[in-house]
Amino acid sequence: MLATPAAIAIDAGGSTTRALIVSHDGECGPVVLSGRGNPVSDPIRAASNIADACAAARAASPHEPQLILAAVAGIVSRDFPELSTKLRERALPGNVTVVSDLLGAYFSATAALDGSVMIVGTGAVAARIANGELVAIRDGLGWLLGDDGSGFWMGRQVARAVAAELDGRGPATSLTPRLLQRLVDTPRRRGVRSADLAALLTWTQTESPMAVAQFAILAADEATADPVASAICEQAACHALATLSSLGTDTLQTAGEPAPVVLGGSVLDPMGPVGQRVHEALHQRALTVSDGVAGAALMAVKHLGGTADEAMLAHIRRQLPPP
Amino acid sequence: MLATPAAIAIDAGGSTTRALIVSHDGECGPVVLSGRGNPVSDPIRAASNIADACAAARAASPHEPQLILAAVAGIVSRDFPELSTKLRERALPGNVTVVSDLLGAYFSATAALDGSVMIVGTGAVAARIANGELVAIRDGLGWLLGDDGSGFWMGRQVARAVAAELDGRGPATSLTPRLLQRLVDTPRRRGVRSADLAALLTWTQTESPMAVAQFAILAADEATADPVASAICEQAACHALATLSSLGTDTLQTAGEPAPVVLGGSVLDPMGPVGQRVHEALHQRALTVSDGVAGAALMAVKHLGGTADEAMLAHIRRQLPPP
Repeated sequence: MLATPAAIAIDAGGSTTRALIVSHDGECGPVVLSGRGNPVSDPIRAASNIADACAAARAASPHEPQLILAAVAGIVSRDFPELSTKLRERALPGNVTVVSDLLGAYFSATAALDGSVMIVGTGAVAARIANGELVAIRDGLGWLLGDDGSGFWMGRQVARAVAAELDGRGPATSLTPRLLQRLVDTPRRRGVRSADLAALLTWTQTESPMAVAQFAILAADEATADPVASAICEQAACHALATLSSLGTDTLQTAGEPAPVVLGGSVLDPMGPVGQRVHEALHQRALTVSDGVAGAALMAVKHLGGTADEAMLAHIRRQLPPP
Repeated sequence: MLATPAAIAIDAGGSTTRALIVSHDGECGPVVLSGRGNPVSDPIRAASNIADACAAARAASPHEPQLILAAVAGIVSRDFPELSTKLRERALPGNVTVVSDLLGAYFSATAALDGSVMIVGTGAVAARIANGELVAIRDGLGWLLGDDGSGFWMGRQVARAVAAELDGRGPATSLTPRLLQRLVDTPRRRGVRSADLAALLTWTQTESPMAVAQFAILAADEATADPVASAICEQAACHALATLSSLGTDTLQTAGEPAPVVLGGSVLDPMGPVGQRVHEALHQRALTVSDGVAGAALMAVKHLGGTADEAMLAHIRRQLPPP
């Protein structure tokens, strides 16, 4: 065991949890992965996955951690009592700080204490960070109330555009053959409706509503060729920019410079049509991020009394595997 | 028992099933009610409720029915084998004709063999009738794929407008205090979000998505006073008119006269803001309907060899209780 103060840093997301040991001078152990760490629907399962990742991270490093910094998806208050229980069961440090995964994402791209972050994947959420704390959050309200411009939002627009064409209520779009390719195994019953529309209806009745999010990629694929797909991508970008702008992102400054805007999530990928439009609108000054484990490590260094500056972040990121 | 040929006519809807015995000269027994008759989610339960109503209708009339005409919600093909089984179990006539409830609604307002019908309640669906048969259907695709302008659609718009205001992303609207009144018993957890927004979020996470349809009435209530509510009602009316117009309703004629347009469902109530706009756009020539039992009775008379004309429909309607 090495005597340098060290911590376990965790990025617990909706599908994957990442953990590593980081020392107060920024030396990182290997990144270990486990399952979903979002506690909203199943906090015991999430806590158990996070504890698994912590135990594996400790086993893979010569450092003995004295505290845990967990950036956790779906955390709105800081209560996550199931996590403390699971950590205790495995004799892991009881000194745990739970923060929003938005802070992990933000500090994975910048060490600046003031700025904003937006993540658009299946959902859509943005936050403002002031003095290193999350001080305001926008959207992230789920597909029924919000998530404007998200993958769910785009996928539902795709499904509705296809349904409208098949129903004789909307324009022809190349999204229709693309979507129908995915339903070749869905049973087709003929009736007053077309067999294709009946198949799409059957599909939505057997899948969970969230499953339409998988059609978002069709809008991205067809955006340059098809006006319906292009409009869906354009509207998604507008929604993302409106949500960001409701945080006052445009006017935030750090020492006379515009404060950093950090963008993440598959929909905001700068290579995709939505991300491209958003990056253009932000004059290419936005930073991008793929996951939040570097930011969790940077926050852990700060909690250990280390220097959490841009040089430290760069040092941490150099040790991580490429995304 | 009377020797006049008679039938059981049924209007099987999403929440209520209505049945009565009608003779071939249009003499009606009392209307009897039972539970939901829409077979989509639970065909055995629906068949059982319809059979209950049939048995009660037969017991309440001196006529012995020789056939059954069932106008059934959610029927896209004519297969409803569970109904024949349940009718056989109760020694009811095996000669059953199952048709769409849209035909029941249509023929409750007119005996004309060509026209169109639109029902907008929780869902939204329109159909064209030619030579007494349903020949085309539009929308009715459920809340995920369609139901444009429906009660669900309106209620979701209300919830999203309230969420956007509470989230600092949308304008102030009187819908917000109205909706929050309904959530007084929902637990409020304070965090980065406002307690009211957290309560709305908790509400959507505990209720079924369909529950937002109950907020549609708030848009109707506030339509004259609040621009956000007014826009929701205006858009709902536009969606209803677009769906109707995709059937070519504007150009349908019967003997040189515009063919009848029949409107039903709570959203299209001519006293409400959405129904009012739709009726105005149709130059007040649309007919309104509350349920489909009169139309089912008219179709039953035709199946018995009786004369299914406007005089017969008026005769049937005079015998029914007011809606």
